[in-house]
Amino acid sequence: MTEHNLQHTISLLTRTPTALNALLRDLPEMWTLRNEGENTWSAFDVVAHLAYCERVNWMPRVRQFGKGEAFKHFDRRGHQKEVQGKSLGQLLDEFARLRSENLGELSAMNLRQENLAMRAEHPVLGMVTLSELLATWAAHDLTHLHQISRVMAHQYRDAVGPFNRNLGALRCAGHSSPG
Amino acid sequence: MTEHNLQHTISLLTRTPTALNALLRDLPEMWTLRNEGENTWSAFDVVAHLAYCERVNWMPRVRQFGKGEAFKHFDRRGHQKEVQGKSLGQLLDEFARLRSENLGELSAMNLRQENLAMRAEHPVLGMVTLSELLATWAAHDLTHLHQISRVMAHQYRDAVGPFNRNLGALRCAGHSSPG
Repeated sequence: MTEHNLQHTISLLTRTPTALNALLRDLPEMWTLRNEGENTWSAFDVVAHLAYCERVNWMPRVRQFGKGEAFKHFDRRGHQKEVQGKSLGQLLDEFARLRSENLGELSAMNLRQENLAMRAEHPVLGMVTLSELLATWAAHDLTHLHQISRVMAHQYRDAVGPFNRNLGALRCAGHSSPG
Repeated sequence: MTEHNLQHTISLLTRTPTALNALLRDLPEMWTLRNEGENTWSAFDVVAHLAYCERVNWMPRVRQFGKGEAFKHFDRRGHQKEVQGKSLGQLLDEFARLRSENLGELSAMNLRQENLAMRAEHPVLGMVTLSELLATWAAHDLTHLHQISRVMAHQYRDAVGPFNRNLGALRCAGHSSPG
């Protein structure tokens, strides 16, 4: 398995907003607004969550390393009050803008190997390193891309008829935690 | 659950090559060439498979409806001999070009509701409708996007440390069939 590499992480984080934009912008709402049932998320909800995380989660936590402060608890539903009246296009723009600003700040920190080993206290998981948090930022993008593709495939669960047994995304039990 | 809608299917099929291009082009090879272990696929392999399916699977099968012919067996490893010496960038270009050509041909067929109910024989699944095949084309894109995001997240399984329990893509058992 691979060790964390900051440049690899940044390469991925740079691409996610563009990839989601290419996949989702102006797509029929059947794909973007439907979810997997009560208390589950649509692609729209996931983009709102990703934008919210850019604002309140990743960089605010990065800034806490080395200060002896514990992270605040993260509200997995925090995005819900922010999306009122917004379109998917607006959320995609917001996600892209916030991500770009955050990566600019991250690069300016000029982190070295010894900085990546700094530790901070997570309210649930205990002590974590800055390296682990940054790797998680990238893996969190991928987890939500994984979720979006599953949620969208679910909309065609009946439409594909007997092909459903060949489609892995339809056999995925939705093991993603909501956030 | 949603019935099949041809315009929704085409909307999605149009976007997949652009989305994969935005996610994968020029990404470090750690993300694109690594897989989940022996006999599993990397993101590179998945793109090769998608391009191969454009050439030998989807439109050739679409053309068979109404002719009383059974589909040929599909070779899940068929792409392997075609990728020798190709770069990921070349495969992404090839996938985009073939998809665009195929969607042009599909649109020119001007399919109506009664055409979508036509049936053909699948070598394993039995009788399927054209509507089911077209819905599967879209859901197959999503299944492989789901697979790519899982395979890439897997590369950071160790790097994320204790955060792994919050990352759904790391709890996905790899239920995708190889193809």
